[in-house]
Amino acid sequence: MIIVPEKEIAGLMTRADAYRAVEQVFASMSKGSAYNFPVIREAIGHADALYGFKSGFDRDGLALGLKSGGYWPGNEAKGLTNHQSTVFLFDADTGKCRAIVGGNLLTALRTAAASAVSINHLARTDARVLGMIGAGHQSLFQLRAAVEQRAFERIIGWNYHPEMLARLASVAAELDLPFEAVNLDRLGAEADVIISITSAHAPSLLDAHVRPGTHIACMGTDTKGKQELEAAIFGRATVFTDEIAQSVTIGEAQHAVAAGIVAADKITPLGAVINGTHPGRTSADEITIFDGTGVGLQDLAVASAVVDLAVAKGVATIVDF
Amino acid sequence: MIIVPEKEIAGLMTRADAYRAVEQVFASMSKGSAYNFPVIREAIGHADALYGFKSGFDRDGLALGLKSGGYWPGNEAKGLTNHQSTVFLFDADTGKCRAIVGGNLLTALRTAAASAVSINHLARTDARVLGMIGAGHQSLFQLRAAVEQRAFERIIGWNYHPEMLARLASVAAELDLPFEAVNLDRLGAEADVIISITSAHAPSLLDAHVRPGTHIACMGTDTKGKQELEAAIFGRATVFTDEIAQSVTIGEAQHAVAAGIVAADKITPLGAVINGTHPGRTSADEITIFDGTGVGLQDLAVASAVVDLAVAKGVATIVDF
Repeated sequence: MIIVPEKEIAGLMTRADAYRAVEQVFASMSKGSAYNFPVIREAIGHADALYGFKSGFDRDGLALGLKSGGYWPGNEAKGLTNHQSTVFLFDADTGKCRAIVGGNLLTALRTAAASAVSINHLARTDARVLGMIGAGHQSLFQLRAAVEQRAFERIIGWNYHPEMLARLASVAAELDLPFEAVNLDRLGAEADVIISITSAHAPSLLDAHVRPGTHIACMGTDTKGKQELEAAIFGRATVFTDEIAQSVTIGEAQHAVAAGIVAADKITPLGAVINGTHPGRTSADEITIFDGTGVGLQDLAVASAVVDLAVAKGVATIVDF
Repeated sequence: MIIVPEKEIAGLMTRADAYRAVEQVFASMSKGSAYNFPVIREAIGHADALYGFKSGFDRDGLALGLKSGGYWPGNEAKGLTNHQSTVFLFDADTGKCRAIVGGNLLTALRTAAASAVSINHLARTDARVLGMIGAGHQSLFQLRAAVEQRAFERIIGWNYHPEMLARLASVAAELDLPFEAVNLDRLGAEADVIISITSAHAPSLLDAHVRPGTHIACMGTDTKGKQELEAAIFGRATVFTDEIAQSVTIGEAQHAVAAGIVAADKITPLGAVINGTHPGRTSADEITIFDGTGVGLQDLAVASAVVDLAVAKGVATIVDF
């Protein structure tokens, strides 16, 4: 059994590796050769924790297994990350456990890779202004991955707690890009690409904020009740997602679908654009939305990639199991 | 992270340890302080494999996690066990993965422990004849655990493939007990306790076979469509199970419930008998059935016990994770 501890991931996995793994598995999902199993998510009634699994099987990459873990709100006080997860890979030919991989950094990388894949395949090629809604831990990963997809010239940002925007400003400075904190009117009016990455339960970005031609990557909605966008925006947009079943139940589209603004069969898997079976954006005025709900197959894809890298570089721990 | 490989389990876990762990967690389930999460079970479309998870949380024992694995029919030809599983335990206070434990032998031990717990709490105290239906791998574990619960004087057995009964005969000889291969008429007429442990999809034990006072542990039915007992037997019996939700959907009771012979609310968790909130058997003529469907909490309970034993005996592998 191969073990890749959390502390090794940063030295192994690049954003480019994560991008490639996620793009590939989205394509496999759309072709029907990879699918996610039902998600388990339970409030366990101890330590206020949410615990569960995301799992699936990719017949192309032979990636089988699950990510398990969840959200432990008391961890920060103990010096630990609140989100804790571990990925378990199984040998698809024998059912034996093949590898255990630390899942915390991988989760951040695969989530950022998903929005980056959506930007690469759906944003206008002349996009120059990136708008960030949200300034938490995950937003910094999003920013770094997004700026690699277009020749962005400046970053603008908005957050419920404006004092947190300094974190985005400092990553932007590292990337040699100007950063400005703005209100949502300006964010919608100026941004060519918007990433929303909050854990909000009410919309911040309204229909009136969004101008034609914008690509919006909604990365913060993965639970019933969460919401970042006013549902009306879906009425003007072409909607893409990682997985339709999750998009309409726990994703950003849940509210627009419930309100009858968009039908489930009008939502397209991003993999269809990657495969070339859907044209993606067809005009400069089109609004595109990517509803990134986060699927188990993304976790398996990046974990499989990291296991290969760890073995190749000789940093994997091998345990007789 | 603590690792207990498959090959260490046999030297660590006794039947008595497994019995104690399973009895305790059945009691916790019945009190409502332990519960199983929904089961995932998928035909993955590769290697004819069935893959999935059984999982749960025991607030009393703080056991949190899952067993993952499944059935790979091509394994035997490769010198591997067809059933492959691994148990993953999580720290309930932090969500960090705490231990990885080989699950193959543990599954056999916990399944045998469940029927042993049912025999101890439900069979007549003067039971002397044990009847075995089924002679596969798991039946040998069942036999060893069952004979420790009553002063059995002889074993009788029946199997779809009679030539396999030699395996039961040889374990009986080891246990210094006479064994006889019989037909189902004799099995029903002579056995005080019957264990059915087949993977059949049609009943073998019929209503006419079963005499008053018998305790039947049905251990082979854990999937929609499987069946070992004629449903009519449920009309004469007091019915117990590990988990009612599983019993009525994938357990032996699925057929009797569908036929209206027994109602779900007439099925009692075995834990209620262990806790003393249900009297269990109340007369020597009563027929009792234990529908043992197999729950994730059993796996977590025996895996937690084995981790404690491995740490105490210094045979656990500790990996920096």
